[in-house]
Amino acid sequence: MTIELISIGTELLLGQIVDTNAAWLSARLAEIGVGVYRRTTVGDNRERIIAALREGLARADGIITIGGLGPTDDDLTREAIAAVLGEPLVLDEGEVARLKAFFALRGREANERQLRQAMRPASAQPIPNPNGTAPGLYAEWQGKPIIAMPGPPNEFQPMATDHVLPRLAERTGGRVIRSRVLRLCGIGESDAETQLQDLIQSENPTLAPLAKLGEVHFRITARADSPAEAEQMIAQTERAVRERLGAYIFGIDETTLEQAVVESLVEAGQSLAIAESCTGGLLGHRITSVPGSSEVFLGGVISYSNVLKESLLGVPREVLETHGAVSEPTARAMAEGTRLRLGSWWGVGITGIAGPGGGSPDKPVGLVYVGLSDPSGTVVRSQIFAGDRATVKYRATQYALWLLYKGVKQGGCDSLSRL
Amino acid sequence: MTIELISIGTELLLGQIVDTNAAWLSARLAEIGVGVYRRTTVGDNRERIIAALREGLARADGIITIGGLGPTDDDLTREAIAAVLGEPLVLDEGEVARLKAFFALRGREANERQLRQAMRPASAQPIPNPNGTAPGLYAEWQGKPIIAMPGPPNEFQPMATDHVLPRLAERTGGRVIRSRVLRLCGIGESDAETQLQDLIQSENPTLAPLAKLGEVHFRITARADSPAEAEQMIAQTERAVRERLGAYIFGIDETTLEQAVVESLVEAGQSLAIAESCTGGLLGHRITSVPGSSEVFLGGVISYSNVLKESLLGVPREVLETHGAVSEPTARAMAEGTRLRLGSWWGVGITGIAGPGGGSPDKPVGLVYVGLSDPSGTVVRSQIFAGDRATVKYRATQYALWLLYKGVKQGGCDSLSRL
Repeated sequence: MTIELISIGTELLLGQIVDTNAAWLSARLAEIGVGVYRRTTVGDNRERIIAALREGLARADGIITIGGLGPTDDDLTREAIAAVLGEPLVLDEGEVARLKAFFALRGREANERQLRQAMRPASAQPIPNPNGTAPGLYAEWQGKPIIAMPGPPNEFQPMATDHVLPRLAERTGGRVIRSRVLRLCGIGESDAETQLQDLIQSENPTLAPLAKLGEVHFRITARADSPAEAEQMIAQTERAVRERLGAYIFGIDETTLEQAVVESLVEAGQSLAIAESCTGGLLGHRITSVPGSSEVFLGGVISYSNVLKESLLGVPREVLETHGAVSEPTARAMAEGTRLRLGSWWGVGITGIAGPGGGSPDKPVGLVYVGLSDPSGTVVRSQIFAGDRATVKYRATQYALWLLYKGVKQGGCDSLSRL
Repeated sequence: MTIELISIGTELLLGQIVDTNAAWLSARLAEIGVGVYRRTTVGDNRERIIAALREGLARADGIITIGGLGPTDDDLTREAIAAVLGEPLVLDEGEVARLKAFFALRGREANERQLRQAMRPASAQPIPNPNGTAPGLYAEWQGKPIIAMPGPPNEFQPMATDHVLPRLAERTGGRVIRSRVLRLCGIGESDAETQLQDLIQSENPTLAPLAKLGEVHFRITARADSPAEAEQMIAQTERAVRERLGAYIFGIDETTLEQAVVESLVEAGQSLAIAESCTGGLLGHRITSVPGSSEVFLGGVISYSNVLKESLLGVPREVLETHGAVSEPTARAMAEGTRLRLGSWWGVGITGIAGPGGGSPDKPVGLVYVGLSDPSGTVVRSQIFAGDRATVKYRATQYALWLLYKGVKQGGCDSLSRL
């Protein structure tokens, strides 16, 4: 089955917003075996929307529009679809009731403009929108679906996930779609793909890799006749992935690495303090982006200057003078100093060269040492990261979080084998 | 003049990448008075590209394609344009020489595949690409321009800026385009717009507002017959904006607020240390994202727990017990303690409630105190920021950076008037 996407909105043609909806939906459609033949973006102009709809219906097996369903005069998608169907717009009483209730709940009355959103082409069905005022629309023209969804991503994505994709999946086999993302760290995309090649070639469930900075995600998507069957298919693929790459999986779906770290610390009942040099606060920022991190995160020191490495962390001056600020012994002393001076179970120390300046043949830009210390001992690891200043900083924090995660999970520094 | 944009690439239709190029170019075209009539995305398929080109040429005054100019078999834009023009592809000798030099410089030889990029429809001209291997193409069909540009943003944006937009501007009046972004902080978008209403209505130069989290940008774009004239037009509008809102402007073009802060400190020869509670390291991260920030930034303390506020910053226990960690006296003690203990000219202290938990009727989620201290004194300001945890953290650092910038620029805390 092929679909054409039509994004509607003059603000898109003026470049005031980037059309992330179209990319998101394209990826979800690919996962259920629906090909996107073409994408079109048109402005808020009735005749141009009608033309785009007609052209799309001539080429593909169905149309999905995004945007133009709101209450203002610029919102013309309903009218355009009615014109293509050759039908009048009628008031959907169910949606009128829902809109009135929506506004009553907010102490307001639904005005005439708002109630326009309850209009639909006579043969179309409304698609529920629990997150906003404009319902979606489902119609058919010569057996081809015409589906209209609102533009705000927080309304569009749930509607697509809960209603539109399952409906299209029925046509491609399997009424129910479920998906799960496995998140990996500590392994490169191509290595991971090589080990999962056979699973990636499967058509249902699909397994799609997605490379992120410093991590790799695999999205499992299953189509089946029931939720239980889809979940079972996903579980089976997940098991196969875990058998091969379980050591690298830190979470599923929306779980970030910093969340996984905080959760592992909460579970272990262990506290954390950090010392950052080249990352300048980014590690602390990432950890404190997790709600509830204060339960385990005491704080840290941004020891950007050597003076602070000495005064706040107790890194011996001889170490700094003999080995330099970017060195294994300094990272070790930072991790241990943090733990002891700040009174935490775990101490992390990061020192490196984020660039663009400051590199040397011995110590190139991108060289980063991470020290990790707990009552059982201290380990130091180093890496040379490619990329600009922002990338090196990010990858350094990613590496530190990953080491810490493995350390907590494996029960301490002494059991932390070479990663 | 109207243009249609055609984005070419199966990876776009699969949702593997978001089409930021199209939005960027749409905005630039709007600034020079060129309307985008429609945008189309097609896959790497010769016939479909040809169809999209023909349809676009029937509707608009010209076509711009993005993507599909590389060396692989999937890159079919050249062939499609040649087919529409009814012309053979010929080898451009100038581009052959350039490609050979490009690869020679890298110690490699340009293979046949790479040299395909020097092919062009007989009547087309290559558009220089100093940032990659594939040149752009400029052709005309019945007087309508067909312009092809490569997809990688680092090649596409300079080519559009340096060659394509000026060429189109010739057709809309004024051969030369120049633009400048003024960046403001400390004032809301609608307040700023209200004060610039007359300038925003001007057609040349245009003045376009762009709201960012915690700042407002205004982009001035002038079209003229010479660079000098365009620059003069920009300078005149900039002067008018500065007369009204100069107190809020911290930089132009790509200058970030953290860059402006670092530059102002370097200029003043003053050092900085920080103490972060609710922002958890984000302020340090932003400051250290500026290359060369180590010249003025000593470091800081992430005093997430109260114990560290006492032990590392010397915030008196009575202050914490009487007023609480989120309070004016704590922010003051943090700023002063940082400055004195870490030995810097400026000290910044941030304490607040990032949420989602931790709020109370007295101290709601979003309440943030920022303390700023230098040898002339200490000031504390507070705000209640709306938004989720990430937003509150970001806005708190933005507010701290802005206070610090004003403090440095005005010569010290004692002269820092109410902002």
